[in-house]
Amino acid sequence: MSIQKPSLPKGTRDFGPIQMARRNFILDTIKETFKLFGFQQLETPAMENLSTLTGKYGDEGDQLLFKILNSGDFLKNVSPQDVQGGVATVLPKVAEKGLRYDLTVPFARYVVMNRNEITFPFKRFQIQPVWRADRPQKGRYREFYQCDADVVGTDSLICELEILLMIKRAFAKLGITDYSIKVNNRKILTGLAEVIGEKGREGELCVAIDKLDKIGWEKVQEELTQRNFTENAIAQLSPIIDLKEGNKGKLEFLKTYLSSSEIGMKGIGELEEVFELLASYGENQEHVDFDVVLARGLSYYTGAIFEVKVNNVSIGSVSGGGRYDNLTGVFGLEGVSGVGFSFGVDRIYDVMDELGLFPERNLDKTKVLITYFDQQGFTYGLKVLHKLREAGISSELYPDDAKIKKQFTYADKKQIPFVVILGDTEIAEEKVSLKDLQTGKQEILTIEGLIERVGK
Amino acid sequence: MSIQKPSLPKGTRDFGPIQMARRNFILDTIKETFKLFGFQQLETPAMENLSTLTGKYGDEGDQLLFKILNSGDFLKNVSPQDVQGGVATVLPKVAEKGLRYDLTVPFARYVVMNRNEITFPFKRFQIQPVWRADRPQKGRYREFYQCDADVVGTDSLICELEILLMIKRAFAKLGITDYSIKVNNRKILTGLAEVIGEKGREGELCVAIDKLDKIGWEKVQEELTQRNFTENAIAQLSPIIDLKEGNKGKLEFLKTYLSSSEIGMKGIGELEEVFELLASYGENQEHVDFDVVLARGLSYYTGAIFEVKVNNVSIGSVSGGGRYDNLTGVFGLEGVSGVGFSFGVDRIYDVMDELGLFPERNLDKTKVLITYFDQQGFTYGLKVLHKLREAGISSELYPDDAKIKKQFTYADKKQIPFVVILGDTEIAEEKVSLKDLQTGKQEILTIEGLIERVGK
Repeated sequence: MSIQKPSLPKGTRDFGPIQMARRNFILDTIKETFKLFGFQQLETPAMENLSTLTGKYGDEGDQLLFKILNSGDFLKNVSPQDVQGGVATVLPKVAEKGLRYDLTVPFARYVVMNRNEITFPFKRFQIQPVWRADRPQKGRYREFYQCDADVVGTDSLICELEILLMIKRAFAKLGITDYSIKVNNRKILTGLAEVIGEKGREGELCVAIDKLDKIGWEKVQEELTQRNFTENAIAQLSPIIDLKEGNKGKLEFLKTYLSSSEIGMKGIGELEEVFELLASYGENQEHVDFDVVLARGLSYYTGAIFEVKVNNVSIGSVSGGGRYDNLTGVFGLEGVSGVGFSFGVDRIYDVMDELGLFPERNLDKTKVLITYFDQQGFTYGLKVLHKLREAGISSELYPDDAKIKKQFTYADKKQIPFVVILGDTEIAEEKVSLKDLQTGKQEILTIEGLIERVGK
Repeated sequence: MSIQKPSLPKGTRDFGPIQMARRNFILDTIKETFKLFGFQQLETPAMENLSTLTGKYGDEGDQLLFKILNSGDFLKNVSPQDVQGGVATVLPKVAEKGLRYDLTVPFARYVVMNRNEITFPFKRFQIQPVWRADRPQKGRYREFYQCDADVVGTDSLICELEILLMIKRAFAKLGITDYSIKVNNRKILTGLAEVIGEKGREGELCVAIDKLDKIGWEKVQEELTQRNFTENAIAQLSPIIDLKEGNKGKLEFLKTYLSSSEIGMKGIGELEEVFELLASYGENQEHVDFDVVLARGLSYYTGAIFEVKVNNVSIGSVSGGGRYDNLTGVFGLEGVSGVGFSFGVDRIYDVMDELGLFPERNLDKTKVLITYFDQQGFTYGLKVLHKLREAGISSELYPDDAKIKKQFTYADKKQIPFVVILGDTEIAEEKVSLKDLQTGKQEILTIEGLIERVGK
């Protein structure tokens, strides 16, 4: 066996101890929130049949699926001529499975396969990696986690309410305070296109308006003109672009503006009801911003649309979702509607890192390292170790016979906050010396005193 | 898009809410134990370069690796003639990556790539799925979780001690009581072959002896004869086979029996020291059984060998591990020794299921469902819901306008233990009716009383 310098496939990452502790802090906070709201966890396999995955993500998505070579003699159905036929001819003969591309299609497959066992409304969350053969670049990986929550089998707007509440709770627990949950409704966008006389063109309209922040209203108008929107239509958009009032003011304005569009008014009604539910729940509208031109997933969202942006960071969009009418139609089960959203775990990690929000304490670190000078100290240390662990305090005894300085270096590098030192006096008196590495303070304690001191 | 009946790739599984809650109970218990002992979590990517994976698991392992087709035009380097060359010719041209086959090789790769940043001794745990293109059968899957803990960079026998302690703690927390941790030492097996005059043949010896429980000593002797072990060697084995005394008695016997083998005596010394450390820690030898003929991983273990068997269940072997000398030599880094072990999560799940050990309570279930008769009840329910969640009690408000019976069916199917009922009286008095679905008992409470009643 030749010796090789190992490397990682491009676009993939290892997560070492510190990163894992931080990722777990994020994921545990989100999981706890999902559970508090009655969501239950689902896990699906990394591999799905290509028949399940193909055609669900558009042509580009099909290209980006990682395909798994059939095991054994994968060439058994391939002739030399097939190679001349290219990838389209050979692929179906050599690969039947692919890696999960998102969590929505596996969820839809699960719902269809288990429709008779599932209790509807079905509230599920799922936190698993997905894989995409995208060109890797900063912040974009070939393997990354998705973290989705969906409720299917109900049209109740309490689901929309709960999405707002879960985002607010999770962010509060994570310590993210400067953010906004942008909300809109697909029906409002449909209504918008209707009342400016461009019925059915809300998709194109939104593509152009989406650039407002970047290129300004002048340029957006130019683009709309190029896309053959009428001058009159563009002029009618002006008050929408200028809409600066709060949620209530915007709703009031739109009740007049959209009054000729039945679907638009339905969208307004839905959004208003979500705000009313928020009030009944006893929660205010802080962080919740009605954004009349927010457009996401127009090919599948039919009601509410959400996007969460953290302010004053480089990549602020960290979460999104919406209501859909037809999750499982492609698998032959019609009428499964629902609402879902997704936390971007990698993005939230970057945001928290940038804002310095990771707590220094309580991040899965060993709390106490026990150090000693000789065999006698080691043996006494085992006893102290046992007591600490029985009290639920994460602790270690330095394993090797080493200079005390080396033992302290270990504590320092592992960011262990407390070091116990066991010398002859401590052993003789059945006590310990405790050094707090942050303050430098050292004190002599009984074992019970030690547990009380570091246990809080 | 044609409509298709979806299915799962063979050998893979979905984990629905109940299974996930149970799996999380197992994994959380193990994780908590690892952390208490100062182990830190690592995650590596699902995909590794084939150069990292190939040649590490023997020829059979190479066959069982799932390979990932290169993205884009995977045929660009393949000629029609290559197809005639078969899999060996085509594979290197169409696949550069494979799926993780175990957690040890990725760990070794991580250690080598990060040797300058890692603080040694490095205590890491890793809980992730692995993939093997094995023929699926009962209890054997193509995707399954491994759950490993290793310490590298120290020879201290405290690591062996901690493995025993972690297994004992995790099993106690899981409620598994009837099991034994079989321990042995590779050096004892080497010594055994030496003293019977068959030096270097401990591998063959163990393959035969391993069948003792199934086929009996007579048949094992026949097999040893067929394998050309001398009559004298076989006769000398007899007292080993008959060894029935406790750990102490076995050690005493072997000190005489192996006295002519230096390495054998070293093994005895190591094992004896582990037992002494256990005593110094203040823990007894319950569940710890020295098994002189326990043999596992003879191609890599050089010191301690562990195997955990649960008694009175169909598949009892649920965990194993040992000490190795050379984790990373294949990647060009010599001298990284350590000790590790692995919990078989699927096996532990099956054992706990068979023994009925999963706790009914506290398994990630919603605790309270709020039911109501009309819009007024729904609105009041939102307020109650808010209070419950603020108190950290997982709760739901039935989302749709439905008959109370349907709401109760939902609670029943989701195994929600408490149902709150909000009728006109309750609303008028700002109270709630609480029904305990297990006892059938119903009572009227204030909201604060409700929180106190269900919150414990």
